[in-house]
Amino acid sequence: MPLRSDWSTKNCPVARGVDIFADPWTVLVLREIFLGNHRFDGLRSALSIADNSLSDRLRRLVESGLLRKQPYGQGARPRVDYLLTDAGRDALPVLNALSQWADKHTPSPTGRTMGVYCTTCGTVATSADWCTTCQSPLTAETTAWERPQEPGILVALGSTPEPLVPLVPPGIPEKR
Amino acid sequence: MPLRSDWSTKNCPVARGVDIFADPWTVLVLREIFLGNHRFDGLRSALSIADNSLSDRLRRLVESGLLRKQPYGQGARPRVDYLLTDAGRDALPVLNALSQWADKHTPSPTGRTMGVYCTTCGTVATSADWCTTCQSPLTAETTAWERPQEPGILVALGSTPEPLVPLVPPGIPEKR
Repeated sequence: MPLRSDWSTKNCPVARGVDIFADPWTVLVLREIFLGNHRFDGLRSALSIADNSLSDRLRRLVESGLLRKQPYGQGARPRVDYLLTDAGRDALPVLNALSQWADKHTPSPTGRTMGVYCTTCGTVATSADWCTTCQSPLTAETTAWERPQEPGILVALGSTPEPLVPLVPPGIPEKR
Repeated sequence: MPLRSDWSTKNCPVARGVDIFADPWTVLVLREIFLGNHRFDGLRSALSIADNSLSDRLRRLVESGLLRKQPYGQGARPRVDYLLTDAGRDALPVLNALSQWADKHTPSPTGRTMGVYCTTCGTVATSADWCTTCQSPLTAETTAWERPQEPGILVALGSTPEPLVPLVPPGIPEKR
């Protein structure tokens, strides 16, 4: 998945990771899909992204194996959900690491941070991929985000076609 | 630090993280500096990067607070080491997460992966920022990388002006 240069065949896995993730729209599309926003129109609306830029990122993410297309509906026009594959779900630590770094080192306009919750034990995680409280991996299936702009609403991550509305997973306090 | 758009004032910390890290050269410059390669000429040589691209990334990383400049030498021409600040060292989980994702989901030309070692206990870490063996944080001070192209050589990370040669930290087996 070349961006400006092709890093996909480098020996160093940091460089091969860069080949996928060192593109702002790619990361933000993944963020939205983790949040359950996995249709073209919803992504375009949430990100204010041009159609061709969004099409390009979705195509690349499918080609790179992070997303898969699942048809839905019965109309004449083909419609698809873009769902995370296992490789896509494994990208969660990259997004959590970005989020945790930025919450520590850049100013938040709202003064609030992203809460990365372990849904196994209901605590806020400080690691990108491991709950140090209950000693279990933080995966898409065991992580919820409390976004700065929606305090009190915990969104369980993962990629299921429904629901598109925020979920409050069991065992998680609704408010901190 | 705007790249194509300015994400630095977004509510979402994933977007603010993107503003810094969603640029291939920026991540690769950081990788080199973690490896102890923190002078302009060494970075240019290791990355085969154009002078103006490298100058631009170093300036941005200094402005964003991830690097600081430390003068060295006595010559007429000012020379500087680019050293990681605390914010820069805190970027290690981003690089580890990229590396661990790519080692799992993209083909390695050499067939070898990056070993991310916890220097506290000498084991290979599977998390981007936490040693699940000895239950301690993986920081620049407690992490060593065994790069795919240099098997058997463990490079202790962090940012000290010397040495520029690979270090084998105590407690780490020299070969796996």
